[in-house]
Amino acid sequence: MTIYFACSISGGRGDQAVYQQIIELLKRHGTVLTEHFGDATLTSEGEALDDCAIHDRDLEWLRRSDVLVAEVTTPSLGVGYEIGRAVEWGKRVICLYRPSPGRRLSGMIVGCAGVVVREYSDVAQLPALLQEALATS
Amino acid sequence: MTIYFACSISGGRGDQAVYQQIIELLKRHGTVLTEHFGDATLTSEGEALDDCAIHDRDLEWLRRSDVLVAEVTTPSLGVGYEIGRAVEWGKRVICLYRPSPGRRLSGMIVGCAGVVVREYSDVAQLPALLQEALATS
Repeated sequence: MTIYFACSISGGRGDQAVYQQIIELLKRHGTVLTEHFGDATLTSEGEALDDCAIHDRDLEWLRRSDVLVAEVTTPSLGVGYEIGRAVEWGKRVICLYRPSPGRRLSGMIVGCAGVVVREYSDVAQLPALLQEALATS
Repeated sequence: MTIYFACSISGGRGDQAVYQQIIELLKRHGTVLTEHFGDATLTSEGEALDDCAIHDRDLEWLRRSDVLVAEVTTPSLGVGYEIGRAVEWGKRVICLYRPSPGRRLSGMIVGCAGVVVREYSDVAQLPALLQEALATS
């Protein structure tokens, strides 16, 4: 299975350690094309590459993938954009969301029939959650 | 001209007054389908409607519009998602962004050939900026 993992970069790297753990879990299920998105060295400044080159490379990876797994706790324009493109292409989309008081996941994501949302409160839940979501969604 | 205005809702309403001013300006150029997105009474809790109903209504409005104008200063999954769908549909997309220290607009938005980004620092610049962007983009 070829997996595109999406997470916040410019929107904020507060969950970077969580992203890294998710990527490690996803690697048990297939090839993760965006493994560097979990790197601690990747800050909200982004990669030292031209934005068009990043966009076109990432979209090409997304097109090649079997499934988009997105961590959506930190609001991110780029992640939303990738979900929109992936839904349009008929890709499987799984969103992982950690609820917190006073926050709410976008209605455009929750209300999209092409998106599977799985909530978690602790990364310890993720191995079983991903196993189930990747097998059934 | 039929205009879909997109802005952060669940992602945070800190710029609500700016959204309202942009909507008033856009109304000089055409019909704004999402005028209520600027309302002060619309909080990050969102509308009192089923998420699927909101998603399907908003996507239908986006499909009917001639142009998507998005205020992208506050990162938002929903706005990113709408940009992704609109780009895929070949819609005109204009993003308005107010730079601030330590922040950076997503490379997926800046690097997308189908998106026009216009930066501003003060709402006073927006009448001329929108006039130009709507006429040329």
